[in-house]
Amino acid sequence: MAELSLRVVPLESMAFAPFGDVIEIAGRDSYWINDHTCRRFNDLARIDVAENEGRPLLSVFEASPRPLPFCIRSLERHPLSSQAFFPLEGRPFLVVVAERGAADTIGALHAFLSSGHQGVNYRRNTWHHALIAIGELSHFLVVDRGGPGEDCEERALEAVVWVTSIDSPR
Amino acid sequence: MAELSLRVVPLESMAFAPFGDVIEIAGRDSYWINDHTCRRFNDLARIDVAENEGRPLLSVFEASPRPLPFCIRSLERHPLSSQAFFPLEGRPFLVVVAERGAADTIGALHAFLSSGHQGVNYRRNTWHHALIAIGELSHFLVVDRGGPGEDCEERALEAVVWVTSIDSPR
Repeated sequence: MAELSLRVVPLESMAFAPFGDVIEIAGRDSYWINDHTCRRFNDLARIDVAENEGRPLLSVFEASPRPLPFCIRSLERHPLSSQAFFPLEGRPFLVVVAERGAADTIGALHAFLSSGHQGVNYRRNTWHHALIAIGELSHFLVVDRGGPGEDCEERALEAVVWVTSIDSPR
Repeated sequence: MAELSLRVVPLESMAFAPFGDVIEIAGRDSYWINDHTCRRFNDLARIDVAENEGRPLLSVFEASPRPLPFCIRSLERHPLSSQAFFPLEGRPFLVVVAERGAADTIGALHAFLSSGHQGVNYRRNTWHHALIAIGELSHFLVVDRGGPGEDCEERALEAVVWVTSIDSPR
């Protein structure tokens, strides 16, 4: 089986835009609430969970760290909903997504490193790898969908891909 | 004006149940996902934001710390929706809610201290104080409602209430 390698770049909203939202406050607009004691960074992700009588689920994922270099063998996508992850310990984690290829196949892969103060919200139907925590057991707040219908499709890659180098993140 | 004082107790799901959900993983059921690399603590809060064409908003609040003892002068409630807060730095914060009094007034107040690994989800129409961060500038992931209609009612207390002692939290 062929093996490819993939370069990791820092997570940045413009580069991630084809795949979903980067949930972060750096560089974002906000406004004062609560008698000027609090700034609200409003509506940072497009939560898309209402399809087919869906409702938002708020959950916590407790993820074991993955070894680096890390091998990507399969991806998943959610045809009915977005899925948002935010790290609860400020710890960097790896985000692997793919372009949509011809005839609905998995296209080119991209790997991003969250600073630990950034979450992601995968757009509906974005091919992505399951959660990849790094270094230590890590917790994430997750907003996705509950409701009827099959909302997870998993597919093996034709060639495994190694996540090797991480470009000087920040 | 009269002044009362209020005792703070550790946040605990049974005691908080009349006001909403405690969002936490301690003592909760979970199940394995992602090839046994991750535990999912599923559906920890009843997100209730669909009324009157509402949609879920995912936001970040950046809250300045409040001095202790802290004076409670007014509360607010959201007639169309729940509102969930989860701390992003693992730092304790104060949760002040009130029972619903006779003829829709503000009833008895209760104060709870989150461990920093617990969030809260105020049930629709629960009287609560605005976010009370403690010690340092603190960030919270917030899930509430966007959409038409007036969804915030604020009311002054008849007597200010001082949050004074914090019972040995844990």
